[in-house]
Amino acid sequence: MNIEILNTGSELLLGRVLNTHQQWLCRQMADLGYVVERQVAVPDTALDIVTGVKEALSRSDLVIATGGLGPTSDDRTRDLVAEMLGRKLNLDTSIVQGIQAMFARRNRPLPPGTEVQAMVPEGALVLVNDFGTAPGLAIQVEAGRFRAKMSWLIMLPGPPRELRPMFTSQVVPLLRREFPLQDAFVCRTLKTTGIGESWVEEKIDGPLKHLTTAGLELGYCARIGEVDVRFVGHGSGGRTQVEEAEATVRALIGNHVFGIDDDQLEQVVVQLLSRKQKKLAFAESCTGGFIANRITNVSGASEVFLAGLVTYSNEAKEQFLGVQAATIAAHGAVSEPTAREMAEGARNRTGADYAISVTGIAGPSGGTDDKPVGTVFIALATPEGTQVKKMLNAFDRETFKYVTSQQGLEMLRQALLASRQ
Amino acid sequence: MNIEILNTGSELLLGRVLNTHQQWLCRQMADLGYVVERQVAVPDTALDIVTGVKEALSRSDLVIATGGLGPTSDDRTRDLVAEMLGRKLNLDTSIVQGIQAMFARRNRPLPPGTEVQAMVPEGALVLVNDFGTAPGLAIQVEAGRFRAKMSWLIMLPGPPRELRPMFTSQVVPLLRREFPLQDAFVCRTLKTTGIGESWVEEKIDGPLKHLTTAGLELGYCARIGEVDVRFVGHGSGGRTQVEEAEATVRALIGNHVFGIDDDQLEQVVVQLLSRKQKKLAFAESCTGGFIANRITNVSGASEVFLAGLVTYSNEAKEQFLGVQAATIAAHGAVSEPTAREMAEGARNRTGADYAISVTGIAGPSGGTDDKPVGTVFIALATPEGTQVKKMLNAFDRETFKYVTSQQGLEMLRQALLASRQ
Repeated sequence: MNIEILNTGSELLLGRVLNTHQQWLCRQMADLGYVVERQVAVPDTALDIVTGVKEALSRSDLVIATGGLGPTSDDRTRDLVAEMLGRKLNLDTSIVQGIQAMFARRNRPLPPGTEVQAMVPEGALVLVNDFGTAPGLAIQVEAGRFRAKMSWLIMLPGPPRELRPMFTSQVVPLLRREFPLQDAFVCRTLKTTGIGESWVEEKIDGPLKHLTTAGLELGYCARIGEVDVRFVGHGSGGRTQVEEAEATVRALIGNHVFGIDDDQLEQVVVQLLSRKQKKLAFAESCTGGFIANRITNVSGASEVFLAGLVTYSNEAKEQFLGVQAATIAAHGAVSEPTAREMAEGARNRTGADYAISVTGIAGPSGGTDDKPVGTVFIALATPEGTQVKKMLNAFDRETFKYVTSQQGLEMLRQALLASRQ
Repeated sequence: MNIEILNTGSELLLGRVLNTHQQWLCRQMADLGYVVERQVAVPDTALDIVTGVKEALSRSDLVIATGGLGPTSDDRTRDLVAEMLGRKLNLDTSIVQGIQAMFARRNRPLPPGTEVQAMVPEGALVLVNDFGTAPGLAIQVEAGRFRAKMSWLIMLPGPPRELRPMFTSQVVPLLRREFPLQDAFVCRTLKTTGIGESWVEEKIDGPLKHLTTAGLELGYCARIGEVDVRFVGHGSGGRTQVEEAEATVRALIGNHVFGIDDDQLEQVVVQLLSRKQKKLAFAESCTGGFIANRITNVSGASEVFLAGLVTYSNEAKEQFLGVQAATIAAHGAVSEPTAREMAEGARNRTGADYAISVTGIAGPSGGTDDKPVGTVFIALATPEGTQVKKMLNAFDRETFKYVTSQQGLEMLRQALLASRQ
């Protein structure tokens, strides 16, 4: 089964908006067991829309088009598709009434152009829009028009808050009915950190060979500070293959696997702390609050997070963390002893069980021969003692912060897993 | 001139990652005066990549492909393109040496698969990767192979922190050389905050009418917490038109204009503080370090930023900021008096000239009838006194943090502009 997504909108090709439809629709489809084979974005010009729709229909069983259904002059998809398919447009008065009722409820005057949105190509199914004015449309394109077999063309409105509920409530049932799945489909992603993509592949590729040969899909997605390993299993044996692959990978590099699917490291850490009823604090210099920010993005962080001291100046390190002026004088603010005193100071002063500290040189300036840009000391103070790691994260400033936060949170995760308390 | 972007990666079509390349590349191109006509995403399978590249080359003068250049087995673009174009792959030892040197600098072992990335198709230009291992490639595809005219195929690595600097430093000069623009093109964006899109439009649309009628392009881009006003002038009078438009807008809503083009509010604030030689501190509760993180993303922040106290617990507010327990008991942690004491405490204890504090309810839980989710008090302590604003930012957690930080930094910017010191 071939599936294609066609996003229309000149703003996409001018880079004015991010195409969130692509990820959202692809993800929904994949989770339902339908894999999108191609996604195309074209501008709002008639020729581009017509070409895009024709090409998609000539190669696909299902085309989902987004945008171009509204009331303004650059909303052309409905008219162009009707013309291309040789279907008359008929006014659907129930749609007009629905739009009138919506504006009446909000005490707003009916805007111009409303009736355009109520024009329905002959034979099309109307997908009701509960969160806006333009309905969606689903059209069965007859065999022989663009290819030998028939296809479905589904047109959805552009605004995400209209498209998403319409997809869930009306497109999913249509898919289930028109394209019942023969093939069970199982997808699992293992999320790793602290190990590079090439190393992951070297360690697991061989041991998984018999499964990939037997049809298991294996994919890698390397982001900075994180490598995802993704399995997709098809057919009756798919689930067993995926389970065996997961067990194999966990046996080989399980200590680097911090979560599955949509897990994020900060969530995993908050959950671990919460389960163990432990409290956390930070002392950040060069990461400037980024680690505290990540942790407080997790709903429920207040249960485990007490305070983060962003001590950028040396005076702040002394005043708020009790770092000794002599330590900074002797070793520098970017040093193993300073990192240690920062973490221990944060832990003692906040009463937290665990404290992470970070001191380093984010750059672009401030590096020396001894301590080049990217040098960073990460300390973790725990009930069992303090450990310090020296890393060289020679990246741009924001990537430096991310990678360093990932390393610090991973140190904490490992310590929490190792602790019996 | 036809330009097409081809994004390769199964993770895109499975909806695992958001395609930020599309927006970024389209935006860069548009700002340079090149409009992308089509964007296509295909999975990592050989047939899809080959079909995608061939189709793109058969209709475009320039194809920019992303992804598939790395060291692992699903990185196939380089090999497939070489085969499709009938070009031999030669090992470029200088690339190998570059990768070796990079890993040596970081004291890390050379991962397997390095040499694959140093294979260069005959006749291709190598685009050096200063932030990763896989170089980019630029290939002139001969006339007559896929269409009558020749085309350029530019292949860029998938990771954004590698792709973006490579585009800026190496692709832009190539574009300028190979595709010189006939039409002079002047672009200026005014960045505003604290005023909604409809209000911006209402205030400036009329007064700019004579310029837009004369050919000036006027566009709005509303993001949360920020509205961009964008002018594009064409031809010989373009620059004068853009300058007149900018002057008009500044006269009408200049107090909301915090910068131009790619300026960010945190940069503007750091520059203002630096010029006035003033110091800054934060006391953050619900924003959890996000404001400190924004400020410390600015290179040179250490000149003006002393410390940020992320006081999530009430105890931390008392201990590190000197907030009175009685104040919290009487008014709650989310209150005008607590916000005031937090800002004044941060200012007094760090010795900063200015301190911003934030206390509120980010949600999703924790709201009450009196103080619903999104309620936030933002205080600014200055040498002239302390002001507190109450806002209702009812958004998801991360948007809440962003909007609140924007409001706090804008309060500071206005205070700095108003101060004679």
